[in-house]
Amino acid sequence: MDIPTFDDVLAAEKRIAPYIHNTPVLTSSYLNQLCAADLFFKCENLQKVGAFKARGASNAVFGLDASTAARGVATHSSGNHAGALCYAAARRGISATVVMPRTAPETKKAAVRSYGGRILECEPTQAAREALLAQVIGETGADLVHPYDDPRVIAGQATCVLELQREIDDLDVVVAPVGGGGLISGTCLTLTQLSPQTRIIAAEPESADDAHRSLLAGEIVLRDGQHSVADGLNTNLKPLTWHFVANFVEDILLVSEAEILAAMYLTWQRMKIIIEPSSAVPLAAIIKHRDRFQGQRVGVIITGGNVELQACPGCPQLGSAK
Amino acid sequence: MDIPTFDDVLAAEKRIAPYIHNTPVLTSSYLNQLCAADLFFKCENLQKVGAFKARGASNAVFGLDASTAARGVATHSSGNHAGALCYAAARRGISATVVMPRTAPETKKAAVRSYGGRILECEPTQAAREALLAQVIGETGADLVHPYDDPRVIAGQATCVLELQREIDDLDVVVAPVGGGGLISGTCLTLTQLSPQTRIIAAEPESADDAHRSLLAGEIVLRDGQHSVADGLNTNLKPLTWHFVANFVEDILLVSEAEILAAMYLTWQRMKIIIEPSSAVPLAAIIKHRDRFQGQRVGVIITGGNVELQACPGCPQLGSAK
Repeated sequence: MDIPTFDDVLAAEKRIAPYIHNTPVLTSSYLNQLCAADLFFKCENLQKVGAFKARGASNAVFGLDASTAARGVATHSSGNHAGALCYAAARRGISATVVMPRTAPETKKAAVRSYGGRILECEPTQAAREALLAQVIGETGADLVHPYDDPRVIAGQATCVLELQREIDDLDVVVAPVGGGGLISGTCLTLTQLSPQTRIIAAEPESADDAHRSLLAGEIVLRDGQHSVADGLNTNLKPLTWHFVANFVEDILLVSEAEILAAMYLTWQRMKIIIEPSSAVPLAAIIKHRDRFQGQRVGVIITGGNVELQACPGCPQLGSAK
Repeated sequence: MDIPTFDDVLAAEKRIAPYIHNTPVLTSSYLNQLCAADLFFKCENLQKVGAFKARGASNAVFGLDASTAARGVATHSSGNHAGALCYAAARRGISATVVMPRTAPETKKAAVRSYGGRILECEPTQAAREALLAQVIGETGADLVHPYDDPRVIAGQATCVLELQREIDDLDVVVAPVGGGGLISGTCLTLTQLSPQTRIIAAEPESADDAHRSLLAGEIVLRDGQHSVADGLNTNLKPLTWHFVANFVEDILLVSEAEILAAMYLTWQRMKIIIEPSSAVPLAAIIKHRDRFQGQRVGVIITGGNVELQACPGCPQLGSAK
């Protein structure tokens, strides 16, 4: 197993700087009061392609040597990694192929197409994704950039909390959502090096709680067919991300679908930013487990903002405005 | 007429620093491409109380001597200035009374109440507002902080473009909405001093075009009963703001209600920020009059984010989440 190091994170930071935003850290007096804590929101919804995934994908794509890059890149993804990989590939001028579940949100498919990526649809199971992806790679020789089980991707995602940590010091705890585990692994990679006293807590939907079950069991527990509204978090851990979760994550807090949506709309309303359901999972967990965070300085990773506003009947102009 | 100076702006900047955010400037590759220009959005929707109005109100409130402050402050406002004045008053520990049209959005009334302000409702006309406010001030001796016809307020609003100008240099043009004219006046005050080559363009709803008519007529034209969806822009110019508009604004571009809503939803979708309709008026104008901005570096003031999400049936959790 090729575990990335903090040197890989520093290399990633330099490599991807021209292709990503150093996103703002926002605060809300209202939410601080609600949670009786100081919350610092790292806003990756304002990142390129609307998600932190631009970091890991850019690190993988721009780290390829010229002859490998010429054969293109490929992946499977529920959405944001797909858009991110196509974004990075387009910036480098190489081709990208994405295996996506046919149930993925239309905005995420549109993002892939808008960056010139090729989409191949499959059934919404982990097995179906992986089989089709293996076939594509066999045929094209494309470089596989896995959404999270890839040291280059984890090192890229690790730059997110690196920026947060540089801007806001003395964080008592950082809360990030866990799906496949790329972001939380990168968070561990950076914080264990730079701020080992900062605790790392993951947040996960009850209805997609494979990581929570894994932590209890002491080994990876696979759950197929997870379908939380937090669609970015329906994937399972892999050995590489399990390494970080098992060793460095203090706890995984669970929240219900209703709690996720309430936290999402609360964020829209009070912070004036659009976040997708996956991004609301940490805040939902902090509100639910208020006693775990009271009086502390809490970093919160807002992972993305790609939500289908068209699904909202209050937004009739969206279709034509695109 | 007491016209504020650039020294007043610098004094305001120091005075209000503890009470406001230096808001981020965001960019969008998508919108740059759409408009064939480089757009720099100064995001006052992420400001305290969700609007630039926190600047002017804080400058007025914290500039009061102790004995005047003890009698409290009062104003009339369609909304954001009301919340802002109550916010500043609460920070200073003094009372605030607000005359509001009974038709003002519920979120804006709720904001006033949440800051401990007292609301007196009136009919939605300029005359009704001013009569009731005069009565309140007669009774309480409160200091009148007009939403825009006040040099302290204009000097405060001027700090917005001051921050933008310091972060992004060489702007060819700045576009801001015009309602009563406080923000555009502050914009003129700062830019004529710091960057006289930067053109200043205002944007206004067709259905609330009093400032546009004034510019054509060469004198203030009053229009009562304006009711654009951009509810912050339904007020009329006053002599103090007319001074700045008449002397320093290059043009006032008009947009329809549909264009405002389309630009608002486009911003939600592509920039991942919640902006209120008034904030979308400049972008709507830039999209409509693309040729006026092509190839240029354009500063755009996003004025606020206080929009009633409850009105959107896609957001059922909002009521309970508040």
